[in-house]
Amino acid sequence: MIRVAVVGAAGDIGGELLRLLIGHPEVEVAHAVSSRFPGKRVDGVHPNLRSATDLLFSTADEVEECDVVFLATPHRAAMTQMERWTGQAKQVFDLTGDFRLDDPEVFRRYYGTEHAAPHLLGDFVPGIPELYRDRLRTADLVSVPGCMAVAGVLALHPLAVESLIEPRAQFDARTGSSGSGATAGEANLHAERSGAMRVFAPTGHRHEAEISRHLGISAAMTATGVEAVRGVQTVCHATLRPGVGKSEVRRAFREHYRDEPFVRVVAHQRGTFRYPEPKILLGSNFCDVGFAVDEEAGRLVTIAALDNLMKGGAGNAVQCLNIRMGWPENLGLSFPGLHPA
Amino acid sequence: MIRVAVVGAAGDIGGELLRLLIGHPEVEVAHAVSSRFPGKRVDGVHPNLRSATDLLFSTADEVEECDVVFLATPHRAAMTQMERWTGQAKQVFDLTGDFRLDDPEVFRRYYGTEHAAPHLLGDFVPGIPELYRDRLRTADLVSVPGCMAVAGVLALHPLAVESLIEPRAQFDARTGSSGSGATAGEANLHAERSGAMRVFAPTGHRHEAEISRHLGISAAMTATGVEAVRGVQTVCHATLRPGVGKSEVRRAFREHYRDEPFVRVVAHQRGTFRYPEPKILLGSNFCDVGFAVDEEAGRLVTIAALDNLMKGGAGNAVQCLNIRMGWPENLGLSFPGLHPA
Amino acid sequence: MIRVAVVGAAGDIGGELLRLLIGHPEVEVAHAVSSRFPGKRVDGVHPNLRSATDLLFSTADEVEECDVVFLATPHRAAMTQMERWTGQAKQVFDLTGDFRLDDPEVFRRYYGTEHAAPHLLGDFVPGIPELYRDRLRTADLVSVPGCMAVAGVLALHPLAVESLIEPRAQFDARTGSSGSGATAGEANLHAERSGAMRVFAPTGHRHEAEISRHLGISAAMTATGVEAVRGVQTVCHATLRPGVGKSEVRRAFREHYRDEPFVRVVAHQRGTFRYPEPKILLGSNFCDVGFAVDEEAGRLVTIAALDNLMKGGAGNAVQCLNIRMGWPENLGLSFPGLHPA
Amino acid sequence: MIRVAVVGAAGDIGGELLRLLIGHPEVEVAHAVSSRFPGKRVDGVHPNLRSATDLLFSTADEVEECDVVFLATPHRAAMTQMERWTGQAKQVFDLTGDFRLDDPEVFRRYYGTEHAAPHLLGDFVPGIPELYRDRLRTADLVSVPGCMAVAGVLALHPLAVESLIEPRAQFDARTGSSGSGATAGEANLHAERSGAMRVFAPTGHRHEAEISRHLGISAAMTATGVEAVRGVQTVCHATLRPGVGKSEVRRAFREHYRDEPFVRVVAHQRGTFRYPEPKILLGSNFCDVGFAVDEEAGRLVTIAALDNLMKGGAGNAVQCLNIRMGWPENLGLSFPGLHPA
Repeated sequence: MIRVAVVGAAGDIGGELLRLLIGHPEVEVAHAVSSRFPGKRVDGVHPNLRSATDLLFSTADEVEECDVVFLATPHRAAMTQMERWTGQAKQVFDLTGDFRLDDPEVFRRYYGTEHAAPHLLGDFVPGIPELYRDRLRTADLVSVPGCMAVAGVLALHPLAVESLIEPRAQFDARTGSSGSGATAGEANLHAERSGAMRVFAPTGHRHEAEISRHLGISAAMTATGVEAVRGVQTVCHATLRPGVGKSEVRRAFREHYRDEPFVRVVAHQRGTFRYPEPKILLGSNFCDVGFAVDEEAGRLVTIAALDNLMKGGAGNAVQCLNIRMGWPENLGLSFPGLHPA
Repeated sequence: MIRVAVVGAAGDIGGELLRLLIGHPEVEVAHAVSSRFPGKRVDGVHPNLRSATDLLFSTADEVEECDVVFLATPHRAAMTQMERWTGQAKQVFDLTGDFRLDDPEVFRRYYGTEHAAPHLLGDFVPGIPELYRDRLRTADLVSVPGCMAVAGVLALHPLAVESLIEPRAQFDARTGSSGSGATAGEANLHAERSGAMRVFAPTGHRHEAEISRHLGISAAMTATGVEAVRGVQTVCHATLRPGVGKSEVRRAFREHYRDEPFVRVVAHQRGTFRYPEPKILLGSNFCDVGFAVDEEAGRLVTIAALDNLMKGGAGNAVQCLNIRMGWPENLGLSFPGLHPA
Repeated sequence: MIRVAVVGAAGDIGGELLRLLIGHPEVEVAHAVSSRFPGKRVDGVHPNLRSATDLLFSTADEVEECDVVFLATPHRAAMTQMERWTGQAKQVFDLTGDFRLDDPEVFRRYYGTEHAAPHLLGDFVPGIPELYRDRLRTADLVSVPGCMAVAGVLALHPLAVESLIEPRAQFDARTGSSGSGATAGEANLHAERSGAMRVFAPTGHRHEAEISRHLGISAAMTATGVEAVRGVQTVCHATLRPGVGKSEVRRAFREHYRDEPFVRVVAHQRGTFRYPEPKILLGSNFCDVGFAVDEEAGRLVTIAALDNLMKGGAGNAVQCLNIRMGWPENLGLSFPGLHPA
Repeated sequence: MIRVAVVGAAGDIGGELLRLLIGHPEVEVAHAVSSRFPGKRVDGVHPNLRSATDLLFSTADEVEECDVVFLATPHRAAMTQMERWTGQAKQVFDLTGDFRLDDPEVFRRYYGTEHAAPHLLGDFVPGIPELYRDRLRTADLVSVPGCMAVAGVLALHPLAVESLIEPRAQFDARTGSSGSGATAGEANLHAERSGAMRVFAPTGHRHEAEISRHLGISAAMTATGVEAVRGVQTVCHATLRPGVGKSEVRRAFREHYRDEPFVRVVAHQRGTFRYPEPKILLGSNFCDVGFAVDEEAGRLVTIAALDNLMKGGAGNAVQCLNIRMGWPENLGLSFPGLHPA
């Protein structure tokens, strides 16, 4: 059993971390830090945890030494306080945006601010098991990527790494409302957000920079909020290199993801769910990946779907933890999702 | 043409008033008062009004004398400032809760505060055309009732006034999220409110007192928020007086509502929409009323549905305005609702 | 390990049974029977089971002897074929409506048809662990109750059994669309059902008869479909016996449900989730129960929430299986639900 | 007053035509043809029309000579029966896909069947007032385009016609469930379709061919069903020609759409609704168009939103009718949409 702290535990990602870590057989949650609710019961904020825990929220100052700290704070809080947490735990898993990019210049362009700890950027291993599993086995600093970035990266990685596509792609990302955080403002009130198709970032979304970094291609993303609480779907448009057809695409996906515990290649010819769909992934850590090819036009469309709080956040972090600790990779992550839901 | 001011024009009810009044052939909207957005364009807050108006929000102090003022402010603002508005306009239509009850003691019990202008309570005519049309023809002070109260009152009025039911009833009211107002807090964020079945007032809801007042029976209401932006449905449970059966109930509804322009008695035997359903009433001023009778048990279930911002608020207020001005009662209120929607 | 068959495995309840039983450490799913999809992959219909199973649907005729059969067929198929299944398995868990009532006369009134096997009605133990746990330990025929019936029974059982309420109550049940089955007709198309508040049974719903049976009171139910895929909430209105107040109600709930693994008494004073809410229970087997008392009026409102496919169906059946087999009651049922979702 | 017939009147588009035409001051609806419900009341299928009409559905054989016929039948019925309808009415407005393409070869590729009346293809004027208004003034055969095609065409037309973009573009179209028709199958049941992000046509959607035709560029479309009943949003990705920047884009949109009664250029810098959003357009005939430019990358993103049953179908058809008859173009089409909704 290891002892862990979750910082930012009253938020949506924080709550999902608590759910997973409380149910994890090798983990004891020692601290759930919330600056807004210190002393209050955790299950008052996260009512799904009733009867699962009697934990109370605490302040950051109350955190004692522990094995692992998970940071699910607002952006910027992580980079200004990182040394506090590295002094207190052997491993830090950062789920904020602060250490997702390795180039301070790119960081400034996408985040609109100077990085507060640029010397640490290179120390963080990206929390994408499918690309960086070996490095994660020994990583003490892990930066868990953005939800739409995970979907975008997994949707094209096998094709990019094999140079089956031209080195640029367009990503159409759709997301549910939980990505906006538990303290979002009027734009996220139900009456405004319900049934929305809200293009909130036609260009310049931060996750775009992560995709470019990890795929080594030029990524252009458009992000839209659609009706869902959980769920991200990224549709990627790319151009096939000459001579590449459907069978190479299928082979590349199958080979790269054959042994991945949490990536499923969806390749049905028909059926309602023949392409990846987030709604069957609620609470699961799977990223489903599918594709369509227009061979005549050399056009490739790939689709990835995941639960933004799971494979797009907390679940992915726990998968990285399992890797780091040498535990079975799916420990505490076996929920398969629901149908219908 | 009359000149009107809408106070609280940035809210949900205020926006609906603007939509209706801007489209009304006999009305000029002179002022749209918002304390939050003075000087901003109205269509920045209510984007459905793009190209319909170039109006800017103004402060209350900028309001000049006009014919009619509509108050859609937060509760309590109306009762403390009523004399300001009566001094400035010939008629005041108050859509807040402040003047919906005529007994200051009942007001204190349901609103948890003393009434600030109890001497005015008796001067307001309730804005329910189906019960008080004659008084509305000459009323200078009109209090437009709560959305769930309108549905509850219209669901039982013919039976109560004819004493076909025992003088007590249970009201199960369901409502969409727009009833909570445009500045509601975290509980109304999409992620929390979406897909909800939220019992927010098992007992003691304020609209209960209005129903009791207007029906002259003892009303017990339970209010639940369900997934919808607009829409209220009130299901009423009553006991039939001995000897009363389905045919008397049908006759009473038909007779009382035969000439009502905005109450439709729904009495289909089958079909998806055989009972009143708010979702076909979006944007319309209709209140649909239906019923079922268990003659053996003497049990009556009636159902009323409406759009809470229309017949449950702004639309009802405009209907009252039309009555007061001697215009056709449905002027500016002819939108029939959508199917499907 | 026991071998089980699920009949009606392509439906919503059938799929949920498969999910639970495939993940159950003591169970092997030998057969998934579907008359519509024999020979097809199970995960083609239930895509959440991709990578969890390679099972194919089979016909009923292909079923070999096994330990337990779960019936999730359309109503009426169970009662006409029960002897087939009792001949093939040691235990039969019937999730249809066919054996939920013990009186053939009441069955005829509520189901509109003669019972095909009235001699078997008395042999079935109702699958409500909270009321019939001892009998379930040795039961070979179990009839799992209707989703709204479970919610209604658990919402009032402690008060009815202690005679704290008058022996009649009104139940306002709200349900998501998955209760209608995977082959429902036009009325359940998304465009018609989305955002609905559809009173589909103002009186006479079949689950009403179950509630009356198990609580020993006169139950009057009104059932409404609201926007949700999963989820049932039942709001119960009862009259307190003279002298009974809030503290007796709280005590009764606490005492009766203290040791129940899947009933949680929700008694918060405030917060968004202070009353039971189905949306935090997706995929979980909990039934949350809460209440409000108007002592002056002697009025009691209780609220129960559950996932209709879990505690309202498949989860409840697995809980009964665990009891019958002497396994820990929560085996395979530990998923806590999601927040937000 | 002209006399019109609506064929396919029980469907979603047919119902919307009825709503608009019944409310149109210059039109009398003589026939509402439905092969499924002859003799039944129209308001039994379209309950929003209660109290608006007593019309009964009739068979096609009962249709008498009239001025205009609107065809909202399933695809293929129009092209095989066109001569029947042209013999019976002066003008035919076809809302099916049968006459949307002018090249029988392209038709075969996208529709998978031979065209049954290729000699008529050239006689139909496309029902896009913004591009073909002059021809529509005298057209007797009008083919109203597909919902996603209208959005795609209006999103890029000013830029394509002025050659401000490279002659190819990617279209990401999202649509609500009403586009699937009132008799759609299991995939459109609420439990499956609710909350979906369903990529149903990654390549090869029929509306793609219409966009290519009308814009004169190479269009690649991906179509996704998202949670909504009504609403289409098309996000277009194009490459700006060298030297073209944000100001040219803005100018082109403004100039081309300045006098259009039903296209609004949305160019807000901030606010929840700064890009086009279908949810404020329910029941309205507007198509909102907006854009974002990444000048450095030469990347253009344009966004169009509309109600698929209105500007994407029935509303657009009535606008074309108004043009053909020389009536004010917005006659019967003045509903502005709702906020919130």
